[in-house]
Amino acid sequence: MRTAFYISDGTAITSEVFGHALLSLFPVDFKHQTISFIENIEKAEQAKQAINDVYKRTGEKPLVFHTFVNPEIRMIIDSCDGIIYNFLEHFVSPLEKHLGVEAKPKAHRTHSINQNSYEHRIDAVNYALANDDGSNVSNYAHADIILVGVSRSGKTPTSLYLALQYGIKAANYPFTDDDMDELKLPDFLKPHKKKIFGLTIDAERLMDIRVNRLANSKYASARQCRMELREVEKLYKKEKISYINSTRFSVEEISAKILSITGLQRHKY
Amino acid sequence: MRTAFYISDGTAITSEVFGHALLSLFPVDFKHQTISFIENIEKAEQAKQAINDVYKRTGEKPLVFHTFVNPEIRMIIDSCDGIIYNFLEHFVSPLEKHLGVEAKPKAHRTHSINQNSYEHRIDAVNYALANDDGSNVSNYAHADIILVGVSRSGKTPTSLYLALQYGIKAANYPFTDDDMDELKLPDFLKPHKKKIFGLTIDAERLMDIRVNRLANSKYASARQCRMELREVEKLYKKEKISYINSTRFSVEEISAKILSITGLQRHKY
Repeated sequence: MRTAFYISDGTAITSEVFGHALLSLFPVDFKHQTISFIENIEKAEQAKQAINDVYKRTGEKPLVFHTFVNPEIRMIIDSCDGIIYNFLEHFVSPLEKHLGVEAKPKAHRTHSINQNSYEHRIDAVNYALANDDGSNVSNYAHADIILVGVSRSGKTPTSLYLALQYGIKAANYPFTDDDMDELKLPDFLKPHKKKIFGLTIDAERLMDIRVNRLANSKYASARQCRMELREVEKLYKKEKISYINSTRFSVEEISAKILSITGLQRHKY
Repeated sequence: MRTAFYISDGTAITSEVFGHALLSLFPVDFKHQTISFIENIEKAEQAKQAINDVYKRTGEKPLVFHTFVNPEIRMIIDSCDGIIYNFLEHFVSPLEKHLGVEAKPKAHRTHSINQNSYEHRIDAVNYALANDDGSNVSNYAHADIILVGVSRSGKTPTSLYLALQYGIKAANYPFTDDDMDELKLPDFLKPHKKKIFGLTIDAERLMDIRVNRLANSKYASARQCRMELREVEKLYKKEKISYINSTRFSVEEISAKILSITGLQRHKY
């Protein structure tokens, strides 16, 4: 199996996203290997050696995705036995020309603590945790968004993703069996109705997830899942709450859809 | 201010990472705008219009970062009044040549639920939440890693990031004031010593964070912060626990360093 290296003087997240986006176009399996924080000549030589070792062992040139701007380190990496894909090189000069400004590369540009969005993101994570699963219904004035839905419809991972990636303060509130007799918007949610966003999910998928969590329970029964979903969807429609069905979407996709639908401003790009 | 558009038929995460990595090389401020889920001709026309409107309003051509593979949509976007940066175009043919395989582009390749890593990631998020802050010390056999450290040294956001991004099951356990008289590894951690990873932080930074949380408390005092940090660092050294100082690092950097130091295998690239 061909090996793909993702290497960087920082986290290598950019190299990973770059390489993965390209490799995902090909119906081929790869062995992935990340080498992060290559911040000096010595580490660059070690990385080069690791790449050369794979070539020697497998006879196939590894693919090497990188974003180095330091010329000394780049020279070492570019001299390895891998096939180099430097994602910056094709774009920097055209951008310089279009902007009329020279590039001023420095290390740790994109995923460091020095972004002014960073505090926002950590505050948002703490907010999401403190306001998970209806644990703090008096605190919704500070929410950017309040996700609602039945248990296991995707509220918590989505709240955390919105917080970690975008610095968005997402609370979430569950509608449970106790609410279902006559489901309505609780009084403490009413003043924040503009911030409420609903999640729903297909009954079959919900059952699967709940059975995994609590097999042979009323909670995981087909009848209960269907009833709860019917009730919340009725509520969303009645109250004109925007909602999406999370069944076929990842947290990344659910979050991107929520941003797109609500127009919420993120704190990080 | 120049506007940068990040547009995609999916989440636009790849376009954002791509564009942001490039723009971060320039000492220039940009207005950022994402348009996600451009899945048909109609939405492509709307996106084109939005780009053209910015040009008309500002007189400056917006930068447009995209990764479209659908030729019809690409043609519409490429005909807009922005400056197009298509991050795939420079790399796909060379890769096809090197791999001897034709690219088979399809939408939603990189951030969808269809990756086999997805369940891992959601399981890991649930694990991180259930095992946050020492809440479940009987469950460490299932952990991939157990982060330890004083309160507010970065354990929780790092655990969540490891889970969400990499599908790594990260528990975390806090050393508190009660432990400090004679700090040692608790008995329930001893069988899992190989999985333990320590965080520490500069006392001044810790004080700042704790004062924000609980001003004028013993918890946030200089003396208490220094004492706790001295004790945990002594413990890490005595027990030969790997650790890093989180002060100047983002959760992305802390996580990447942990992966690099421990060699932990992630479930997602």
